[in-house]
Amino acid sequence: MIDLEDTRQIVGARNVIDATTLRDRPQDFWINTPTQALGLVKPADTVELSAILALCHEHGQAVIFEGGRTNLVGATQSNSETLLISLERLNHIGAPDRKGMTIEVGAGAIVEAVQQRCAAEGLRFGLDFGARGSAMIGGALATNAGGFQALRYGVARDQVLGLECVLADGTVLSHLTPYTKDNTGYDLKHLFIGSEGTLGVITRAVLRLHPAPRSVNTALLAFESFDAVAETLGLMRRDLHGTLSSFEIMWAEFFHSNVDALLGGRSPIEGRYPYYILCESEGFDPEEDAALFERVVSQALETGLIADAVIATSSRQRSELWKIREDFEAEMLLFKTMVDFDVSLPVASMEAFVNEVQRRLDEEVPDNLGLHVLGHLGDGNLHVTTGVPTPQGKGKVRALVYALIAGYGGSISAEHGIGVAKRDYLHYSRTPAELATMRLLKGALDPKGILNPGKVI
Amino acid sequence: MIDLEDTRQIVGARNVIDATTLRDRPQDFWINTPTQALGLVKPADTVELSAILALCHEHGQAVIFEGGRTNLVGATQSNSETLLISLERLNHIGAPDRKGMTIEVGAGAIVEAVQQRCAAEGLRFGLDFGARGSAMIGGALATNAGGFQALRYGVARDQVLGLECVLADGTVLSHLTPYTKDNTGYDLKHLFIGSEGTLGVITRAVLRLHPAPRSVNTALLAFESFDAVAETLGLMRRDLHGTLSSFEIMWAEFFHSNVDALLGGRSPIEGRYPYYILCESEGFDPEEDAALFERVVSQALETGLIADAVIATSSRQRSELWKIREDFEAEMLLFKTMVDFDVSLPVASMEAFVNEVQRRLDEEVPDNLGLHVLGHLGDGNLHVTTGVPTPQGKGKVRALVYALIAGYGGSISAEHGIGVAKRDYLHYSRTPAELATMRLLKGALDPKGILNPGKVI
Repeated sequence: MIDLEDTRQIVGARNVIDATTLRDRPQDFWINTPTQALGLVKPADTVELSAILALCHEHGQAVIFEGGRTNLVGATQSNSETLLISLERLNHIGAPDRKGMTIEVGAGAIVEAVQQRCAAEGLRFGLDFGARGSAMIGGALATNAGGFQALRYGVARDQVLGLECVLADGTVLSHLTPYTKDNTGYDLKHLFIGSEGTLGVITRAVLRLHPAPRSVNTALLAFESFDAVAETLGLMRRDLHGTLSSFEIMWAEFFHSNVDALLGGRSPIEGRYPYYILCESEGFDPEEDAALFERVVSQALETGLIADAVIATSSRQRSELWKIREDFEAEMLLFKTMVDFDVSLPVASMEAFVNEVQRRLDEEVPDNLGLHVLGHLGDGNLHVTTGVPTPQGKGKVRALVYALIAGYGGSISAEHGIGVAKRDYLHYSRTPAELATMRLLKGALDPKGILNPGKVI
Repeated sequence: MIDLEDTRQIVGARNVIDATTLRDRPQDFWINTPTQALGLVKPADTVELSAILALCHEHGQAVIFEGGRTNLVGATQSNSETLLISLERLNHIGAPDRKGMTIEVGAGAIVEAVQQRCAAEGLRFGLDFGARGSAMIGGALATNAGGFQALRYGVARDQVLGLECVLADGTVLSHLTPYTKDNTGYDLKHLFIGSEGTLGVITRAVLRLHPAPRSVNTALLAFESFDAVAETLGLMRRDLHGTLSSFEIMWAEFFHSNVDALLGGRSPIEGRYPYYILCESEGFDPEEDAALFERVVSQALETGLIADAVIATSSRQRSELWKIREDFEAEMLLFKTMVDFDVSLPVASMEAFVNEVQRRLDEEVPDNLGLHVLGHLGDGNLHVTTGVPTPQGKGKVRALVYALIAGYGGSISAEHGIGVAKRDYLHYSRTPAELATMRLLKGALDPKGILNPGKVI
């Protein structure tokens, strides 16, 4: 273990928090136990971070990186022997380059602040998710965050043109290129994006931006069958002239639970259907886009593809529709000891998968508290949640669902990452050869295993 | 060295070509010397390829992978001691999944065949470049090809959802996932895409598709200043409602050389301007898109941003305009001993960069035969070509231009890769720390150095 005093020499005393003080704060947003760590260090920039890592590498000191601490997989879990390193002071947000449509930001910049800085210049940062107000760019890239706009702009990885990171031994890898095409040897950035800080720590990035849309059209759609849902996704991707930006699915049980909790049961759509879609188009011509959106929805209603629909006519109504999709308070009350899954699978397999989960749960975990399914259908990404009264029940549900998702060729983590929470289930999605290759890379880049030990692999 | 007979046991005698027979064919499309190699092996599938590599690995046998053999950086150069492995028989093209908008293809599938298979289903494969009729998917992914549509759909890397590849020792890494979101540990696919077969060989991929556009509008624009060009790019990205698909720049010298050669000097635009742009929009509403395209071009003409413009009114005229951009016969005649560059740099630096290249060439290589500059402006990618009468002159020009591009923070290879041709210049774009990290990865994944030795690093 290093002496915390040595880190004070690098970052200054006021940027080091000792173990005792740390116990006053919870581990993260979700886990309310006191933070246990050797200390917390807040470097000001890449140079200080590099010096800290060089020191830790020399002494074989394990480190855990933290950003907004709102991840869902225990990615910042520490113990009394690990040193926490916060990226919060690397929060520089550059001026957006309007011609090149790029922006350079530090790892500590808050996602929402980057969004707003770009919006002020008529530009769109193509990443958005629930934790936008707390998550930092470094964490969003390290976990390859997904969210609501992936259908249109891709995931976090797809936003990155250039990257700077620091290796375990303090080596700085800087390749802050602001252009799309760059084939100069191995693309190192993609190795660090999504590896959750286990191969190196991201310190800065050049992000790709898009013209900010000028129109938004939102609808809630009800469906009698999953086939009709899938058909409508294809139809909207083709017929909305490339403006489709969200296509969010809710199975009835989740939808009505939130309608009951938020709207006193008064659903925006009368009756009860098995599937609901919250879809949104964003374009550049408010009049034309609204007309097109209405036309496409109306035609699908007329042909019977969509059973019923509501198009939001005000931003208040739009927010209300999104709240049904985004709110989780009712679910957290309902499921108490919650077991939740963030999975991907081919759209064509989703209905069978969910039905099988339901059936197996009812047979094998009869005390389950229900099943909520929702997600980003356009990305093949479902969030599946249930509650069980006992810890043993939780383990049973995990084994059951992960084995099922493997059988459907799915991914056990679509957008939340692995952290510590899913590490033991990684083999359901990756072959022994893939896992061996990951370990090989980890060993090559972090031979002493000091970076986020126990995370991912 | 292995005994070629052992490879016949794996792939069958008719799929092995011996050294003598190989000498009857040129090395590749560009290099007309006889192919020198231990032999050429054509595995039928991943299993056979894996067995061949396991054999080679055991004996430390160097291998070179080949696809369409139309790359521009000597990527398939072999010698009498290396074994060639062709991917041509892995040419399976699956049925496009219309709902999921994906297609599974083998590494040997010809790019154009994949494009056509998708088009037949109303889908678009987002990769297109000059060598579409010869290049194979495996090569296009291994070199992370770019081309004409990157502005809209990204480069080769961006088309890939799932990948299968084989490591040096024959280990098969298969992760053929058909969905956008997948955060299950390290993203291995991006390590192999763009590494030019030096870390493993790509055998199969699941590609992302897009709805096929139903309209195309093409214009040739003339500009008085580079600033106006850059301004117009931003304007079109915003105002064409996301339909801009190409924005190709030609400096006057190249443009008029092709106008002279192809059209007998009768330019589609009267007079002579310093910059020409071939731009294209592709959308989903032929009437509305044509009106919008005309409106945006007209307004830019009225404000004086664009000096002159021609909008193609027929597919014949469209082809004629594209031919001015795509044809290189006149250039090859003009420059005889040609030196060409494929570079990226920020759009804001391009004008200064080209002017400095011109000035330095005139001062330091006064016998240069002229300077052609063109490229994919929207991607920050320029192709710069000159001719010099002597081999020493070529070396001088390379050193001069690469040093300049490094000074502008540019990339010495935007879309053609490194191969053997640019290996000695890689340090102009990558730091010693990056190069050391690349070597570390190469050593970890191919410890005996048998995969495409001498390529990239």
